[in-house]
Amino acid sequence: MALIIQKYGGTSVGNIDRVRSVARRVIQSAARGNRVVAVVSAMAGETNRLIDLGKTVSKNSEGREFDVLLATGEQVTTALLALAIEDQGRKAVSFLGHQVQITTTGSFSRARIESVNAERTRKALDDGYIVVVAGFQGATREGSITTLGRGGSDITAVALGVALKADRVEFYKDVDGIFTADPAVCPDARLLPRVAYEEMLEMSYLGAKVLHPRCVELARRNGLPLVVRSSLNFNPGTVVVPEEDLMEYAAVAGIVCDKNQVKVSLTGIPDKPGILAGIFTAVAEADINIDMIVEDVSSASGGTSVSFTCGSADLAAAEKVAKKLTAAFPGGAWGVKAGLNKLSIVGAGMRLHSGVASRMFTALAREGVGVYMVNTSDIKVSCLIEAKYAELAVRTLHEVFELSKAPAKKAAKAGKGPRRSI
Amino acid sequence: MALIIQKYGGTSVGNIDRVRSVARRVIQSAARGNRVVAVVSAMAGETNRLIDLGKTVSKNSEGREFDVLLATGEQVTTALLALAIEDQGRKAVSFLGHQVQITTTGSFSRARIESVNAERTRKALDDGYIVVVAGFQGATREGSITTLGRGGSDITAVALGVALKADRVEFYKDVDGIFTADPAVCPDARLLPRVAYEEMLEMSYLGAKVLHPRCVELARRNGLPLVVRSSLNFNPGTVVVPEEDLMEYAAVAGIVCDKNQVKVSLTGIPDKPGILAGIFTAVAEADINIDMIVEDVSSASGGTSVSFTCGSADLAAAEKVAKKLTAAFPGGAWGVKAGLNKLSIVGAGMRLHSGVASRMFTALAREGVGVYMVNTSDIKVSCLIEAKYAELAVRTLHEVFELSKAPAKKAAKAGKGPRRSI
Repeated sequence: MALIIQKYGGTSVGNIDRVRSVARRVIQSAARGNRVVAVVSAMAGETNRLIDLGKTVSKNSEGREFDVLLATGEQVTTALLALAIEDQGRKAVSFLGHQVQITTTGSFSRARIESVNAERTRKALDDGYIVVVAGFQGATREGSITTLGRGGSDITAVALGVALKADRVEFYKDVDGIFTADPAVCPDARLLPRVAYEEMLEMSYLGAKVLHPRCVELARRNGLPLVVRSSLNFNPGTVVVPEEDLMEYAAVAGIVCDKNQVKVSLTGIPDKPGILAGIFTAVAEADINIDMIVEDVSSASGGTSVSFTCGSADLAAAEKVAKKLTAAFPGGAWGVKAGLNKLSIVGAGMRLHSGVASRMFTALAREGVGVYMVNTSDIKVSCLIEAKYAELAVRTLHEVFELSKAPAKKAAKAGKGPRRSI
Repeated sequence: MALIIQKYGGTSVGNIDRVRSVARRVIQSAARGNRVVAVVSAMAGETNRLIDLGKTVSKNSEGREFDVLLATGEQVTTALLALAIEDQGRKAVSFLGHQVQITTTGSFSRARIESVNAERTRKALDDGYIVVVAGFQGATREGSITTLGRGGSDITAVALGVALKADRVEFYKDVDGIFTADPAVCPDARLLPRVAYEEMLEMSYLGAKVLHPRCVELARRNGLPLVVRSSLNFNPGTVVVPEEDLMEYAAVAGIVCDKNQVKVSLTGIPDKPGILAGIFTAVAEADINIDMIVEDVSSASGGTSVSFTCGSADLAAAEKVAKKLTAAFPGGAWGVKAGLNKLSIVGAGMRLHSGVASRMFTALAREGVGVYMVNTSDIKVSCLIEAKYAELAVRTLHEVFELSKAPAKKAAKAGKGPRRSI
């Protein structure tokens, strides 16, 4: 008898019919003998409605009382799902963040989970209840309601999974799982039956919106299998597992493309200790979320050039900072290139395959796609390219790395099969 | 420095402008040096919206999960009011039912308060916060959210007032206070500056919708002064105090008229022990809320006649029961008179004045108003009359008992003034 956490996002509970449909799915899983905890988000659009409501009475849009307001969104769906399950004839009980004893820091609107006391949930499961838990919320030790920020409901699901030692956490989405590339861009995109935590993490950081990096990291640290699947069908979806459990084996697992990137270049910067720290302190103080940073010390002018990227929402702020920073140096200059995409290939297999980056650059060059910046880690290569080439580049790399074909199986080691069967 | 509970109903917080206006009023009271706890209802209409939402997924319209759903209505206004107060520059903190530690029975949708632990509220007041509390909700000892049923937010305010030993509880309404009669019917109606708990209780039971009898009774038992006033102006309103604190002195304090009453009469009932119990058990099993009961044993036929009244919503059910009950007795018969109003005069002074009922009957007879049933207590006389005479009867009695004039002051006893000055 497996203990399963099922997480349903805002679209999956977006209206009453969908809530009923989620209730049916939860009951089906329970009827197969599983112990089921359903974690729900607010109905799609509800959190924004509450934020707008709060902003009409308050200049601030966060803090203790904002969290009290926002937490009602998940409370409503939690109650509705529990009611729908009971209406379909199964015992259900709902728990809010403070009831399921998710204790968090007091940093309202972006609280971090400190501990989860799973006793009450475990007891309810033992008593035959389907447990419905409000995602996105917790409470401080003093009992103030908190919300967990972006990806909060996913975090709730994984944190509960860890505390309950669940067999897996299933995320129900409006997509079938994790694909080798965006199927809307690349018709050959293939559903990945399994990906490694590290790959999922990189993909999340690199712009795949499916799972929040915080929740993938938490699952990885605790070896908790995650499943990403559709709430609209019964396909098995994608399982996120430790790298050593992967049965497939390819250099590149998938391609991710993150839109609306801006590259900011500062040149003629004196090559002195502390200069970079000064630059990025100024950038951080301007509230700019930077992503990639490239520094090239050996420029002919004797100075340094530094480039960084950020989202296009930060364009104006970035220009202002760049202007101010370079004005301070004789010979300092700055430039901005907007309308870029960050194209990344991700694969744990890269550690074992060489020449992956070179194959990527060759293919892009062949299609006339210029590369504005490169950033690498042991399992990913990211290139900044012009947005107009994004679809072409994704399709080209998808073909070059043969992602539409299932990769060769790993040679089975004697006496050691996959550790978990899901 | 007084400790004041201010209760704002759904109309008073019915939109964002009104929430802001409530915030101003709360802050004004605090600026005068008072310690203020504001108790709020859900925005007008919100509780019904949530009930409708719940009914779309559930055949049941009450129970544990329904309370989780309904409690969000008050949670939203609580957060909004706290935000609005902070936005106007004062420290505010919101508490939900479980946070303010209102512990209730587990009878969901109509829970009764068992205890209130006021420590947290008192500490927040000591720390200079204006405290905003969600009305209508509490939690069981096990931590399940409960709601308190009709009049729930009023009960929250009074229960908190008792626990905090508040100086008074102020109810902010869309009326100026308690009047001698409905001003819409009787242009001469006068605002009562003070009424006794007992009078307020009778008026509430008799159909004045201003305060719920449960909360008046709780305040009376604890000697907690109540104030009923308008949220739209700064008039002082009506103070509800112990009878001995009344400074005015009249036989009749006010007139209340309750619409949509039905009288059911059963005749030819055998005069045997237990027969009444059987009748009213059957009535209760049919879920009919009965109000007045009159029995006349000495009827010429040797049998008994019994009449009772109920709301017109119960008419069909009452006819069915009456038919079934009288069919069992030879000579049994039944009749129903719909379209009646219950007209009541209430006054603690009746205990000292004789002839009040006779003045009432004489005045009604003079105007040709027939009386279908009479019921009395030590501080009220109720008559069932035809609905068409209701306005005429109210105005007639208002004049006969000279309610538009302020009554004579009590002779001040040496050394004993009013115990509280509000």
